[in-house]
Amino acid sequence: MKWLTGNTVDILTALNEDFRLTQEDNQQVEEQVRQIIRQVIQNGDQALKDYSKKFDQVELQELFISQETIDQGYQQVEKEVIAALEAAKENIISYHQKQKQHDFMDTEKTGVLRGQLVLPLARVGVYVPGGTAAYPSSVLMNVLPAKIAGVKEIIMVTPPSVNGVPDVILAAAKIAGVNKIFQIGGAQSIAALAYGTETVPKVDKIVGPGNIYVATAKKQVFGVVGIDMIAGPSEIGILADESANPTYIAADLLSQAEHDTLARTILVTNSISLAEQVEKDIYRQLESLPRKEIAIQAIKNHGRIIIASTIASMFTIMNEIAPEHLEVQLTDPISYLHEIKNAGSIFLGEYASEPVGDYFSGTNHVLPTSGTAKFYSPLGVYDFVKYSQVTYYTKEALAEVKDAITVLARKEGLEAHARAIEYRFD
Amino acid sequence: MKWLTGNTVDILTALNEDFRLTQEDNQQVEEQVRQIIRQVIQNGDQALKDYSKKFDQVELQELFISQETIDQGYQQVEKEVIAALEAAKENIISYHQKQKQHDFMDTEKTGVLRGQLVLPLARVGVYVPGGTAAYPSSVLMNVLPAKIAGVKEIIMVTPPSVNGVPDVILAAAKIAGVNKIFQIGGAQSIAALAYGTETVPKVDKIVGPGNIYVATAKKQVFGVVGIDMIAGPSEIGILADESANPTYIAADLLSQAEHDTLARTILVTNSISLAEQVEKDIYRQLESLPRKEIAIQAIKNHGRIIIASTIASMFTIMNEIAPEHLEVQLTDPISYLHEIKNAGSIFLGEYASEPVGDYFSGTNHVLPTSGTAKFYSPLGVYDFVKYSQVTYYTKEALAEVKDAITVLARKEGLEAHARAIEYRFD
Repeated sequence: MKWLTGNTVDILTALNEDFRLTQEDNQQVEEQVRQIIRQVIQNGDQALKDYSKKFDQVELQELFISQETIDQGYQQVEKEVIAALEAAKENIISYHQKQKQHDFMDTEKTGVLRGQLVLPLARVGVYVPGGTAAYPSSVLMNVLPAKIAGVKEIIMVTPPSVNGVPDVILAAAKIAGVNKIFQIGGAQSIAALAYGTETVPKVDKIVGPGNIYVATAKKQVFGVVGIDMIAGPSEIGILADESANPTYIAADLLSQAEHDTLARTILVTNSISLAEQVEKDIYRQLESLPRKEIAIQAIKNHGRIIIASTIASMFTIMNEIAPEHLEVQLTDPISYLHEIKNAGSIFLGEYASEPVGDYFSGTNHVLPTSGTAKFYSPLGVYDFVKYSQVTYYTKEALAEVKDAITVLARKEGLEAHARAIEYRFD
Repeated sequence: MKWLTGNTVDILTALNEDFRLTQEDNQQVEEQVRQIIRQVIQNGDQALKDYSKKFDQVELQELFISQETIDQGYQQVEKEVIAALEAAKENIISYHQKQKQHDFMDTEKTGVLRGQLVLPLARVGVYVPGGTAAYPSSVLMNVLPAKIAGVKEIIMVTPPSVNGVPDVILAAAKIAGVNKIFQIGGAQSIAALAYGTETVPKVDKIVGPGNIYVATAKKQVFGVVGIDMIAGPSEIGILADESANPTYIAADLLSQAEHDTLARTILVTNSISLAEQVEKDIYRQLESLPRKEIAIQAIKNHGRIIIASTIASMFTIMNEIAPEHLEVQLTDPISYLHEIKNAGSIFLGEYASEPVGDYFSGTNHVLPTSGTAKFYSPLGVYDFVKYSQVTYYTKEALAEVKDAITVLARKEGLEAHARAIEYRFD
């Protein structure tokens, strides 16, 4: 792992160089995606089938996956997996229900009513990647907040495969309450959800992670439909002092590193001896990991050990990193909550290991990555609602304020705005 | 105006053709913007000055606008305008304060704590267009929700002009509490806010409407920073029955039409005689409008009168349109609130004329346009906060659920995730 030491400013400058977010410049992919979207708009289902043949090497008769196929898939999954998914579902629901928001009405001025309605989106599309990145836990995390928000129709798309969609994905979709599943992947599936085809309904918003083609397609249809955040390399940041257990820290860093060679694993500590033990333990634990090759690349290229002189500077540095996952392995961790400014999901103490949140606690595991926790939030119920403002004025209430309105309208050169008010008093 | 009649399905099909949102394909602008962003990243302030000379014909010594200049501008503005802006500010604050959200903590399971923190963004950039589109009311609408959210630093950018930034814009910025103003416009100002330069601080999110270059730049930096919705042609939809006043409806439609030749004005009614009177009144009122040429284009090309047979079908059609502004000019308008599924801002009854919301009531006038109210919300306090999840487990609580976690982790092939839990119990 690369060590960074010195004063806070130097460390932040070095990190900024290492992790700087840059405008992705991939015009070839962008142009290819633009073509795919155009084709899907023009040729609908036929375009989807053609792309499946071309990109997935699958000749599809049907895009739609029948209830029978879903039920059969569910039956094939081990009972203990089904039970674990059901238990996770219960926790996800109980956590996300607390995110539900309520309408408000304000009547503080005579004759005036102002309010805000919280309304669910009507129809949402969820992209579920194929291959080794097909995670049943992510199906629950993407679908259940939409259900709780009151979304009536949830459409899942996932790449076709000669072996069919994995049973455990079908089972997770059934458990989560997905309404329809289509076997379509890549940019073409995003186009289908954004514009609709003969069989795929147009949705209002598309969520779920995908490869570069999926991400580029989402960015291109953004505005035609809503999209969730665009996922980049994910990361874990751990704040630890000498009281922390190096074995747990090493294990948690590796759980992030095994995802992806680009995954970032960052320890910030004021204890050099802890840092040394963690690093040693990482290489020891690595040896027997099935995904050793991935994890080792991640640790070598994107692992950082940062030595800070004080707890305060540890927080300054970590807030600048704004990690997707933040573990606080300090003595009395809860006392530091107010120091955290930017983090997707915060894990306090030595038993809140990150995988607890990935699979079970009920908090969402779809989180802002690559430092975007400075402005993005975890996926939540709030992503599946929109607000409408409500205004009512009596004639008397309008009369009282009409001069202020017409003064501002005329100052902006918008005479028809002023007259719309004045006609009411002619 | 174009009339649409017939059954609901036919009307919706026709509207869909007319108003269909399509993927904007402007590769020339995209490439130009990409270059501009690259230049600003490389050359910072010098690039900004070069572009000001090239695009705005202004040679700038300083990008930053001094407090003295701002105060002088404020002094130049008519007292009644200042008073109206102050009154609007008070209403905007009192409405938006109701949007503030609170942290929550959940302790329903023994040994487990889960929660959500609501944290303000640290720094926000607000784009304010120049020329005739420089609206002081929009400065208040973009800045005040960020202040209420707790954003510490609000940076405004607005195009330079040989005559300087308009006094009323400086005054509105002062009233709203903007922290710094830079005279930079176009794609280069978005690049400066997204990446930072020697004098312009990097922000976490950029809001505010702009021309095609600004909108394209925002889309390109999306992910590096947060952005608000991308604004398209704006619209008003009015639901009216025979009890409604045609003069008011005509005036309200015109107040939208005068904005822009692309503005959409849509009346949905079950009364042919009302529709006829509205149309007649529009052409009568148009005659004396200063912005007649703009309004007439909007009305002719993007005005629609839709005749529906029932109140229920009126709502079906309007929900499909999902208007930015929706006026409900029906008898007993409040009784129909539950019928509205998609609308940015709803105005009930004949005295809640749309300009009340544009200037004064305190609800936001930055709203989802072009039918995007199906998935977007008005600008609000929620746009300037992000959430962090919090999780704490005791050893005993983790012991109880560890098998479910490891089962799921191993089913997904993520052995290091399972081991991170198991190391805690070795």
